[in-house]
Amino acid sequence: MNSSVDVLFLLMGTVMILAMHAGFAFLELGTVRTKNQVNALGKILGDFCISAIAYYFIGYQFAYGINFFDSTDVLVKNNGYELIKFFFLLTFVAAIPAIVSGGVAERARLIPLFVATFIIVAFCYPLMEGMMWNGNFGLQSWLEATFGASFHDFAGSIVVHAFGGWIALAAVYLLGVRHNRFKHGYNSIHPPSSIPFLALGSWILIVGWFGFNVMSAQKVADISGLVAVNSLMAMVGGTLVAMAMSKNDPGFMYNGPLAGLVAVCAGSDVMHPLGSLFVGGVAGAIFVYMFTFAHKKLKIDDVLGDAWGLWFVGWYCLWYLWTKSIVGSGWC
Amino acid sequence: MNSSVDVLFLLMGTVMILAMHAGFAFLELGTVRTKNQVNALGKILGDFCISAIAYYFIGYQFAYGINFFDSTDVLVKNNGYELIKFFFLLTFVAAIPAIVSGGVAERARLIPLFVATFIIVAFCYPLMEGMMWNGNFGLQSWLEATFGASFHDFAGSIVVHAFGGWIALAAVYLLGVRHNRFKHGYNSIHPPSSIPFLALGSWILIVGWFGFNVMSAQKVADISGLVAVNSLMAMVGGTLVAMAMSKNDPGFMYNGPLAGLVAVCAGSDVMHPLGSLFVGGVAGAIFVYMFTFAHKKLKIDDVLGDAWGLWFVGWYCLWYLWTKSIVGSGWC
Amino acid sequence: MNSSVDVLFLLMGTVMILAMHAGFAFLELGTVRTKNQVNALGKILGDFCISAIAYYFIGYQFAYGINFFDSTDVLVKNNGYELIKFFFLLTFVAAIPAIVSGGVAERARLIPLFVATFIIVAFCYPLMEGMMWNGNFGLQSWLEATFGASFHDFAGSIVVHAFGGWIALAAVYLLGVRHNRFKHGYNSIHPPSSIPFLALGSWILIVGWFGFNVMSAQKVADISGLVAVNSLMAMVGGTLVAMAMSKNDPGFMYNGPLAGLVAVCAGSDVMHPLGSLFVGGVAGAIFVYMFTFAHKKLKIDDVLGDAWGLWFVGWYCLWYLWTKSIVGSGWC
Repeated sequence: MNSSVDVLFLLMGTVMILAMHAGFAFLELGTVRTKNQVNALGKILGDFCISAIAYYFIGYQFAYGINFFDSTDVLVKNNGYELIKFFFLLTFVAAIPAIVSGGVAERARLIPLFVATFIIVAFCYPLMEGMMWNGNFGLQSWLEATFGASFHDFAGSIVVHAFGGWIALAAVYLLGVRHNRFKHGYNSIHPPSSIPFLALGSWILIVGWFGFNVMSAQKVADISGLVAVNSLMAMVGGTLVAMAMSKNDPGFMYNGPLAGLVAVCAGSDVMHPLGSLFVGGVAGAIFVYMFTFAHKKLKIDDVLGDAWGLWFVGWYCLWYLWTKSIVGSGWC
Repeated sequence: MNSSVDVLFLLMGTVMILAMHAGFAFLELGTVRTKNQVNALGKILGDFCISAIAYYFIGYQFAYGINFFDSTDVLVKNNGYELIKFFFLLTFVAAIPAIVSGGVAERARLIPLFVATFIIVAFCYPLMEGMMWNGNFGLQSWLEATFGASFHDFAGSIVVHAFGGWIALAAVYLLGVRHNRFKHGYNSIHPPSSIPFLALGSWILIVGWFGFNVMSAQKVADISGLVAVNSLMAMVGGTLVAMAMSKNDPGFMYNGPLAGLVAVCAGSDVMHPLGSLFVGGVAGAIFVYMFTFAHKKLKIDDVLGDAWGLWFVGWYCLWYLWTKSIVGSGWC
Repeated sequence: MNSSVDVLFLLMGTVMILAMHAGFAFLELGTVRTKNQVNALGKILGDFCISAIAYYFIGYQFAYGINFFDSTDVLVKNNGYELIKFFFLLTFVAAIPAIVSGGVAERARLIPLFVATFIIVAFCYPLMEGMMWNGNFGLQSWLEATFGASFHDFAGSIVVHAFGGWIALAAVYLLGVRHNRFKHGYNSIHPPSSIPFLALGSWILIVGWFGFNVMSAQKVADISGLVAVNSLMAMVGGTLVAMAMSKNDPGFMYNGPLAGLVAVCAGSDVMHPLGSLFVGGVAGAIFVYMFTFAHKKLKIDDVLGDAWGLWFVGWYCLWYLWTKSIVGSGWC
């Protein structure tokens, strides 16, 4: 009974995060120009499929030392728990190219992007994932021995989101700005083509994120309502601060909850809901401020704000986690 | 094991009802004019976040006498069941401002609406919720002592939907009609801006409603396939009657299932599927008739039909529940 | 405990497949002309409701010998497991008219379509379903006695999808081509009205399909991560092949995963993920090739490619299953 309910548990999380990839697609589709909507749809679906291939054949084995080339008799042990765990973690790694895709929107050609996706998903991400979540190369034990605590990233603020943001930042920098982007200064001459689709994407991401965070427990016995409510409070904090700072600008308003959710992933299993509300609010503020700063002062063209927003959300989480994991302050 | 599966059970319901808030947003977005689409998106997301704050800090404690200011060690007891129950019930109360928002669409400014939301969610709704679902102030025991049965509202036909409809009716009345709304009589000069988005919102609401009703059991041991099939049959009845009466008008066609689902919430745990089909059909008929009557005869401008439709659906449920709870007729 | 978790299991599957009906609606809405979008929305919702009536009152009893006219006391036995199973299987049968609807898009009037839906759901499908999945009329035992194995169709590649495709093919043939469809040859003068909505429909179908396949186990104890990963790999194969063959045409790109998923339904409980990747890829290729062939050479006007695509996907599965079930080759 236990393994079957665990499979059900992970399946529901997997399905919710799979849906988040539709969310990425519509968030990007609504933000880019009408002529690039179809391109956005193709990138997200294609990236997901390339990721599945790269992770099945190489990446998962690299990170966890397990492959799926045995016969089906072996694979179906424990209701196929190891298979659904692979699928669950695939939906995480596939978020990396989706984040990058948002940053470099309207500038990337499909084939080079797919090649980059394959390399990231087969090698780069599993290297980090394996060190952080599977104890590979002894990094975590070294941290624990040296500082008294290992690095704690429950649902991937750093491992998934900041990592994607860093790659996106490099890609955005290398590809340069879109033609005429800064012709009229900060305000783009390429406004979002569809606020409804942008909001649809954001809603799908918000809802799916509760699978991302809660199901990171990986076993139903470890499920915690605390993770759900921490995610809720961070999303609320991010939204309200982004609304207030941007005077209800729809783009910021619908990215605020995502900034809050990114920031809370790491500590959502140990923080207090009030701490999460605060962390989410700070993440929302960082997102609005950094997006504006990057475009106004640095003339970086980060279409969905994935690169700068997530970069700084990432640093913020890193700092937070360092404090929390190592110093162990019980503040929140 | 038991508490963890209960948390999973409530989480899935919570996620489905959270998604319904996206449904409210798109139902309103598709119904209002293009220029007010962004406003609708902001209202629904903002209202949800204000509701979370109001309910976390005041409302839930008011209704159930439990707060979440203890340390995380206390909060995570029983896999954090009490926290997920809070989140689950938050998605209910947050439906009230979403219902009101639909009624007063295209006329409400954000800040006053948010203030009203805060007051409703912190005080008004918890007062009713506490009396009906937590036995506060002895109303239910007085009803039981006096009439032989307490007031039975399983998933909130009255507590949630009719209550929202009554507030919406007052708000619609106070705010008055939109400029030129009745220039050409019954047919609005402001037709729905997007039937596809209206339908998308309705579909999301329909699907999420099965979490609303089924998960109202709150414990997986009390789950009942009957609740799901009663909800199905009421949705079917509401749709078919609304389609037939309106000659396939897309607005009525996609609000019919919602009328049926509102009506069946209360008794979905005790009714027979055939009774639910009938109740749903009557609710669909009431919705179409009352919406038309309110706009044609009374010149009430209820954009999404939330106020009049839900008001009468509410009275109908009230009558039904009275009959069922008190008189105990086993008709359906 | 067991029956309640089984009800939760089937409920989650039911909800995901119910959502797929919204997916059918948006896939068709995005593919047809703007003027026929509302018609598509009405057909799918109406067909679903007619299906519910036909299956509740006639079809389910015809296939499984069980009806729901007993009192509620009887219906709620085992947490109402039999009721949720009815609802689950209703979402399967209701896919038949949805598939047909896509084939005959822009040509069918509502009332005749609803009449056809009623007949198919009440009589035709339950005849096949009962023989295949409930052992009716001794067909399966005859197959087993004669060939040494019964016909294995786990989640309905043939029973649901190919059956729908065959009816769609007949309907498309009988209704003839749309006015001016082939005026400029293969390329339609009626291009898809909205690629974003088409893609939205496809995403909803993709996500929901994991409920369709995994929950076909019907009991949580029989859940298998293998079914989920087989579905994933077939979807990936279908997408990548359709993208490559069509040079990223958005219509083919977003129908490719669906072709892969149709093909894998039948054997998703026994195949190997590598076999599923291959089967999905072949299905994607068949879809692109047959859709093009049917429109270029045969001048068949199959709007969503349901008829020809599914017809050949169906034959392909039939051949595959025959090989697998009867000959028992352990290749995949």
